[in-house]
Amino acid sequence: MNAENIDHIGVAVENIDQAIKFYQEVLGMKLVHFEVLEDRGIKVAFLTGQNGETAIELMEPINHYDINNTVAKFLKNRGQGLHHIAIKVSDIQKSLEELSGKGLQLIDTKPRKGARGHLVAFVHPKSAMGILLELVQPQE
Amino acid sequence: MNAENIDHIGVAVENIDQAIKFYQEVLGMKLVHFEVLEDRGIKVAFLTGQNGETAIELMEPINHYDINNTVAKFLKNRGQGLHHIAIKVSDIQKSLEELSGKGLQLIDTKPRKGARGHLVAFVHPKSAMGILLELVQPQE
Repeated sequence: MNAENIDHIGVAVENIDQAIKFYQEVLGMKLVHFEVLEDRGIKVAFLTGQNGETAIELMEPINHYDINNTVAKFLKNRGQGLHHIAIKVSDIQKSLEELSGKGLQLIDTKPRKGARGHLVAFVHPKSAMGILLELVQPQE
Repeated sequence: MNAENIDHIGVAVENIDQAIKFYQEVLGMKLVHFEVLEDRGIKVAFLTGQNGETAIELMEPINHYDINNTVAKFLKNRGQGLHHIAIKVSDIQKSLEELSGKGLQLIDTKPRKGARGHLVAFVHPKSAMGILLELVQPQE
């Protein structure tokens, strides 16, 4: 596959409103998108630097007590912090097939609709040197 | 402070040569810099997407058994994976004073020379919602 750029870095937070405020007011970043992803049970906010493309995606579970929610589980087990890296590709289906052909374990074998309406798919951390890796193909 | 962009994401790896190969050959990223930081006891490699500015910084300890090395300790305690986020700023000294003035706990109160000859300083994760945060001011 061909990585175009780092689309975003996913960060799990306990309180997304406080976190947005911290990234805006303390670090001087810009809020570029906010969305509630009902099907994944999370609220997400994307923030970039004043001149940068790559975003930080803050994620907070809608229900912190939902043991089936991966972000709630992450917060419970590891606390707030870095969760995943997302790489932008131009053809996500082809990229997934290539990675699968090289023996990587995919969490999603087919792309699905993620935040911002983009196509997304996750690769298992044990196939990517300990990193939960997301592929993103923007949808125009 | 004013975040310009996400400069890089730090990733701890067990074997930097294998990791570079993985990021290049499997994910299709470009190696843009390699350096041995003797004073920090680590080898680092910076890789970007084909069109992206933001890099992944792979880090491997020179001596995996050095219990005083922060990356060796991280690998022992948590295994390979996401380690820190670095934000680019135009005036690192002023940014550190601002963050300190807002009550954030700094690991480095003065900038020091980091990879690529840039000025760098770290902010404690407990002041940044669980994220080890690095500030970077490129030196021309």
